[in-house]
Formats: sequence, structure tokens, C-alpha cells
Amino acid sequence: KLTELMEPLHAADIADLLEQINAYDRARLIRLYDREFDGDILSELDESIREEVIAILRPDVLADAVRDLDSDDVVDLLEDLEEPQQEAILDALEDADRAVVEQSLSYPENSAGRLMQREVVMAPEHWNVGQAIDFMRTHDDLPEQFYHMVLVNPRMHPVGNVTLGKIMGAHRATPLQTLVEESFQVIPVNQDEEDVAYAFNQYHLISAPVVDEEGRIVGVITIDDAMVVLDEEHEEDILRLAGVGEGSLSDRVFETTMQRFPWLAVNLVTAVLASLVISMFEETIARFVALAVLMPIVASMGGNAGTQSLTVAVRALATKDLTRSNVWRVIRREALVGLINGLVFAVVMGLVGLAWFGSPLLGGVIAVAMVINLVVAGLAGTIVPVLLEKAGVDPALASGSFVTTVTDVVGFFAFLGLAAVMLL
Amino acid sequence: KLTELMEPLHAADIADLLEQINAYDRARLIRLYDREFDGDILSELDESIREEVIAILRPDVLADAVRDLDSDDVVDLLEDLEEPQQEAILDALEDADRAVVEQSLSYPENSAGRLMQREVVMAPEHWNVGQAIDFMRTHDDLPEQFYHMVLVNPRMHPVGNVTLGKIMGAHRATPLQTLVEESFQVIPVNQDEEDVAYAFNQYHLISAPVVDEEGRIVGVITIDDAMVVLDEEHEEDILRLAGVGEGSLSDRVFETTMQRFPWLAVNLVTAVLASLVISMFEETIARFVALAVLMPIVASMGGNAGTQSLTVAVRALATKDLTRSNVWRVIRREALVGLINGLVFAVVMGLVGLAWFGSPLLGGVIAVAMVINLVVAGLAGTIVPVLLEKAGVDPALASGSFVTTVTDVVGFFAFLGLAAVMLL
Ligand SMILES: [Mg+2]
Ligand SMILES: [Mg+2]
Ligand SMILES: [Mg+2]
Ligand SMILES: [Mg+2]
Ligand SMILES: [Mg+2]
Ligand SMILES: [Mg+2]
Ligand SMILES: [Mg+2]
Ligand SMILES: [Mg+2]
Ligand SMILES: [Mg+2]
Ligand SMILES: [Mg+2]
Ligand SMILES: [Mg+2]
Ligand SMILES: [Mg+2]
Ligand SMILES: [Mg+2]
Repeated sequence: KLTELMEPLHAADIADLLEQINAYDRARLIRLYDREFDGDILSELDESIREEVIAILRPDVLADAVRDLDSDDVVDLLEDLEEPQQEAILDALEDADRAVVEQSLSYPENSAGRLMQREVVMAPEHWNVGQAIDFMRTHDDLPEQFYHMVLVNPRMHPVGNVTLGKIMGAHRATPLQTLVEESFQVIPVNQDEEDVAYAFNQYHLISAPVVDEEGRIVGVITIDDAMVVLDEEHEEDILRLAGVGEGSLSDRVFETTMQRFPWLAVNLVTAVLASLVISMFEETIARFVALAVLMPIVASMGGNAGTQSLTVAVRALATKDLTRSNVWRVIRREALVGLINGLVFAVVMGLVGLAWFGSPLLGGVIAVAMVINLVVAGLAGTIVPVLLEKAGVDPALASGSFVTTVTDVVGFFAFLGLAAVMLL
Repeated sequence: KLTELMEPLHAADIADLLEQINAYDRARLIRLYDREFDGDILSELDESIREEVIAILRPDVLADAVRDLDSDDVVDLLEDLEEPQQEAILDALEDADRAVVEQSLSYPENSAGRLMQREVVMAPEHWNVGQAIDFMRTHDDLPEQFYHMVLVNPRMHPVGNVTLGKIMGAHRATPLQTLVEESFQVIPVNQDEEDVAYAFNQYHLISAPVVDEEGRIVGVITIDDAMVVLDEEHEEDILRLAGVGEGSLSDRVFETTMQRFPWLAVNLVTAVLASLVISMFEETIARFVALAVLMPIVASMGGNAGTQSLTVAVRALATKDLTRSNVWRVIRREALVGLINGLVFAVVMGLVGLAWFGSPLLGGVIAVAMVINLVVAGLAGTIVPVLLEKAGVDPALASGSFVTTVTDVVGFFAFLGLAAVMLL
């Protein structure tokens, strides 16, 4: 009955189902579903509960499940597991597969080498369509999924890609070299997977050969795996921009608390810094309490404008659209945008200040502080991420704290400082 | 010389180059490069400067450039253009192509119909491998890129996908039906492109047939186009979370100012709201200026914790990982995380308050306010996006303002209110 219910579900949906129920139901469901448990479900499962599920599965079921997977999926499964579980799975593989997987694991984490599949369909560059077809027809362990035949020279360097569609449509005598794709890119085995995903997206690649330091072909990466990486890199950026470490929805309270803590701690330090600025003006505030009422507005507007600028900059750095050739133009633009919006909101807040507290001087002070802080927000929001990127720090990770510290400090200092000078 | 320099560049890189130089250089470069101008460059160009470039191109160059493109790329190019430019490009197309493009444009914006290509390679479901190969070999206008043969029944309903690799590897007599892919998904022509991208990513699709209301095949979507949508949807979420409307790096100062303005205006309203809360306690602040110094810390910590929770919730809603079956567990988790982190930072801030201002009572007040605000941040950060999604509003767009308003108001109210009660 359960099997009947689960049968039409895709492995990815079963994985999602397992993620969304609680640990107790999960264990029960897995024990019941045991026999049908597919390796793809393990691949699709979120890391945070993968180990838990593997621990529940009977060893023989686990072995069966893993033996069905492509080498790249086994690598993806293994790399985040603890030693004993890794061993158990490696033991389940046939010797040849095990060697392939272990070799892939020898490449650096998050590199093209981890992402590629080892099964490549290739042909000598001088072959014609007929030879290619005969080769494929007689070769009985072609990979599950492949879309290109890679042409290689005698030194095993890939020199071109021919789509299967082109091979299908051509006459037997046509040389493969006349059918190669226009956009052909070769991926170094040590390249970061983030750059691999960028290349697939930028050049609309479907599959690309991976080469070692000597330029010899060692595997192939397909677009479906590149798409997963693109998705993960975006997720990482979004979460990092929000100060949420790694994090996953199925993490428990304790893990989640630990992930969120560091960024809140950083924020506390920056908030105390801003408070120190305020405390410099305690006397002024004591005399004009209206200042305490209005000062968070200046800081908040600056923080928002700064977040806008920094998010645009972080994105543009990730998509390689912000480069040396346009960085000054972008900085100038952000400062000007800050200036114009600053002037508009200065007028609005000046009037609000005047109407609320009946003091034109107070209105003037908040107006000037607003302009200053929004211009600074635009500048800091662009310059901070660019400098972090240059320093080799992920701008998504650290820009936020820096920029809001700047806008808080500048906002409070400009507003209270001006007030101290003008009102006393 | 220029042509020599540009020759090795991919259309996507030329487009990026054009985006990164200023308008004057852009016009000069395009006039010089005129003859070689490829339709793909137009496809790759950012919308914000596409119209500008089209206006510069000579009509005959434009016509040549567009005639090379696949129908789906022409649609993508046309849909964002103004009427006169649309007409000019449609006129450049041959009648048959024009009809195809106009039909695609009749589907709703951001729908599968706009995304699909019309050229489909299909076969009756009862064919065998030999018939399929003969068909492809004699058919001389196969699409540039295709990876599957779609099997259709006599009513033109797609019933399965066969990869070209499987066809290559099988004997001529093998029925196509024995080779169909396990994960086969059909996409309704009116489906939102966001859901299309989700399906490709979730089910690792390479291509999927698109069907009309009667279930008849009308086109096919390929993973490369789905990957572009996935990228755009992420970009949209990141920018919306930061309160940056549409926005692109090549927009000018005025456009950028207009995009940023509305969210700063919303923020101003919420900041004034928070100020109103503060003004309720003017007398208390006048007596204890230390409150003015410390109050931004409580609000800032709440804002940060709220942003953490809401970002996780917005992401989980987008990936369909936050559903009715786990929403209560997630809300409870976020509240508990807020409670634990709140307690830790309460101790820290309590000690800071005590050490700085020598008042245990003040330390106690800030500690209790911190706990309250972080729990509220966790709750609001999860509940607000979920309710917005239910109401049909994009949670990425509006959650931020709501949540930070809540944490500002609650933060100031809890801290100053407690202070008023305890210290007076
Ligand atoms: Mg999943
Ligand atoms: Mg896979
Ligand atoms: Mg991995
Ligand atoms: Mg990375
Ligand atoms: Mg794969
Ligand atoms: Mg990154
Ligand atoms: Mg780019
Ligand atoms: Mg581009
Ligand atoms: Mg479009
Ligand atoms: Mg959308
Ligand atoms: Mg296409
Ligand atoms: Mg969206
Ligand atoms: Mg999912």
C-alpha cells in the first residue's frame, strides 16, 4: 500500500517528503519503505539529514541503493559524510567503481574534479559520422546521459564537441570535425565549481570536457549538475547576505542557534560602536530629547540605502558584470543616486522635523545629516564589496556588517554632531 | 584589426563588454563592428541597453542578425522592446518565422509559452530505433540543439522522451517505447517560468515538451533556457530582499534613483513609526540619557535576527521546502533559536549595561528587552513571509519592511517601556 502510494513519486519528491516530516516519522517511513529505497533519494536528500537516513538503512539496502548511482552522484553523496559511513559505502561498490570514486575524491572540494563524471564518450578527431555511430552501437556501457561526443587528438586533448543531434542528421561519410559546436569550452579539473556554473550559464554549455594540468581529458561535466551548483551558489549568497551561515530548514534548534550566533555577535559589536558615538553626545541629547526620537531615522535610512547598493555590487561581482572597466562609473552612480534620494528625503524629513517639533533648525540638521548619510551609504555600499573581493573575502559574507557600521556611525555622528554645533 | 580582436570572443562576452563601456564608446564600437554583428550578441545584452544598441544598428545589419536566431531567442529579444522596434524586427523575419514568433508572443509574459522553442523532434510512439534514425537523417531542418526525441500518441499528446544517446546505442529493431526516460515531465503552456525552472532543477530534466490545454504538444523547453530563468529568479529574489526594484548595473543615475526610491520611502514611514514609539517615552529618556545610548542596540539586534529568519523562510518558500507539513515546526524552531540567542546576548548586554552605566537595573532592562525582541524577530521572520505568500504577495518583496518594523517597534517599546516602569 505504501509502495503503491510512493511509486509515482520522483526520488527528489520523496527526499523532500522525508525532509519535511519529523525524525520519528522519518525513521518509521524508511523502515517500511526499505526494500524499494532508491539511491537517487539519498542523492537528493539534504545533507543535514542524509547521515541520519543512512544510519537507519540496512547495510544491504544501502549497498544496493548506492550501486545504481553514477560516479559523480556517489562522489557528491560521499564527500559530506563522516569517515565510517564513507567506508561503508565505498565497500559496497565494485572495485572499478570504487577506484573511480576515490580518484574523484582526491580532487579539491568544490572543484570541477568533484563535479565531473568519469564516463566520457569520445572519438579521435579524424573520425567520420559512420565510425562514430558504429562505435556507439557496439559499445555497450554508454553512460546513462550524454549529449555530445568529444573529439580528442592523439595526445588525448579535447578539441571539439559534436552534438548527437548533428551526428544523427548527417551522412555517414561526413567528417566529425565539420560538425563541431561553435561554443566549446574546456574546464580545468581544479577550477572552482562556482566558475564552472558561471561558464555553463554564460556560454550556454550543455556539457564540457574536464582536463588535467597537461590538458588531457579526465571527465565531463553536464549542465544538469552545473545547474545544481548555480542554485547552491545563489542560495549561499542569499544566506550569507542575511548573515545566516550555512543553514538548512531541517537543522535542529541547537545547530541553527550556533549558525546564527556569530553574525549576531558581530552585529552586537557594531551596534555597541554606534552607541559609543551616541554617548559622545549625551549632554546634547539630555537638553534636546527630540534628537533621541529622530536619530534612528537617519541611521535606518542610511542602512537601507547602503544595503541596496551593496546588494547590487555583490550580485554584479558574482556575475562578473562589475569589473575594473566600470567600477568608477558605478561608484559615481551610486553616490549620485544617494545624493538625489538624500535631497528628496532631506526635504521630507526637514518638514517632518519642523512640523513635529516646531524647530526649523532641527529640521535643517536632520536634512543635512540625511544627505550626508545616503551619499556615504552609496559609496560604502559599492566600495566595501569591491575591496573585500580584492582581498579574497567573499563580499556576500562580510559586506553587510561593514556597511551598516559605516552608515550607523556616520548617521549618528552627522546628526548629533550637527545638532550639537547648531542647537547649543 | 578590431574584428580580429573580437573574433575569439563569445557573443555573451561581447555583450558584457558592450555593457561595461560608456554609451559613447558603445556607439562607436558598434558602428565599427557593424558588419560582423551577431544576433546572439543582442540576445545576451542586458535589456537596459538593448534598445539603445538596436537603435544604433543599421536596419539591414539588424535584419541579418535577427534572422540567425532560434524562435525562442527572437521571442526573448522582442518581448521587452517598444512597439516600433518590435515591428522592425518582425518585418525582418521570413513569413513562417514571423508567424511562429507572433504566436509565442500571444502567450502570457513569463509563461512556458514564451520560453519554449517551436521546433520539436518527435516520433509516433510505435516507431522503432531504425525508423527514428531514418527520419532524422532525411529531415534536413532539425533544430540546432536537441537532446531528445519526443514520443507522441495519435492525438499528439507527448507520452515519453528518448535520449539521442539511447537511440545511438540501440539496435534498429528496438521499439522506442522500451528506451523512454524514467523522469518525464510535461509542462503546461501557461505555467509560470519560475515553476518551469523549479521543475527542471528538481527533476534534473534536460528537455521537456510543452502542451496546450488539450494536452497536445506545442513546443519544447530545454535546460539551457531553464537555467537562465533560474538565474533570473534568484537575482530577482536577492534584489527584492534588499529593496532594490528591478535594476541593472547599466542603468543610469535617474532610473536607478527611481528604482531605489519607493523602498526608501517605505522605510522612512516605518522609521517614523518607530520614532513615534520613542517619543512616547521622551520624559524617561530626558531623565536617563543612557537609554538613548542603548536603545538602538536592542532594535538593531532584533532587526538582524529577523532578517536571518525571514531570509531562511523566503528561500524555503521559493524552493517549496517550507510547506504546511513543517511550517509549525519551523516557527517553533525560529522562536526557540531567538530565545536561546536572546538569553546569551541578554547576559552579555546586561553586563555591558552594568559596567558602562553602573546600574544593575538598566542591565536587567536591556537583558529582558533583548530576549523579547529576539523571540519576536524569530516569530515575525517566519510568520510574515508565510502569510504574504498565502496572500499572493511575493514574500521576497515585502517581508523585510514588515519584519523590521515589528522588531523596531517591539524593541523600542520593550526597552523603553520596561525602563519607564523599573527606573522611575
Ligand atoms: Mg530536496
Ligand atoms: Mg544526477
Ligand atoms: Mg558537492
Ligand atoms: Mg562556493
Ligand atoms: Mg551527473
Ligand atoms: Mg559565492
Ligand atoms: Mg555576465
Ligand atoms: Mg551578460
Ligand atoms: Mg524572457
Ligand atoms: Mg518571476
Ligand atoms: Mg533555446
Ligand atoms: Mg520569485
Ligand atoms: Mg526541494
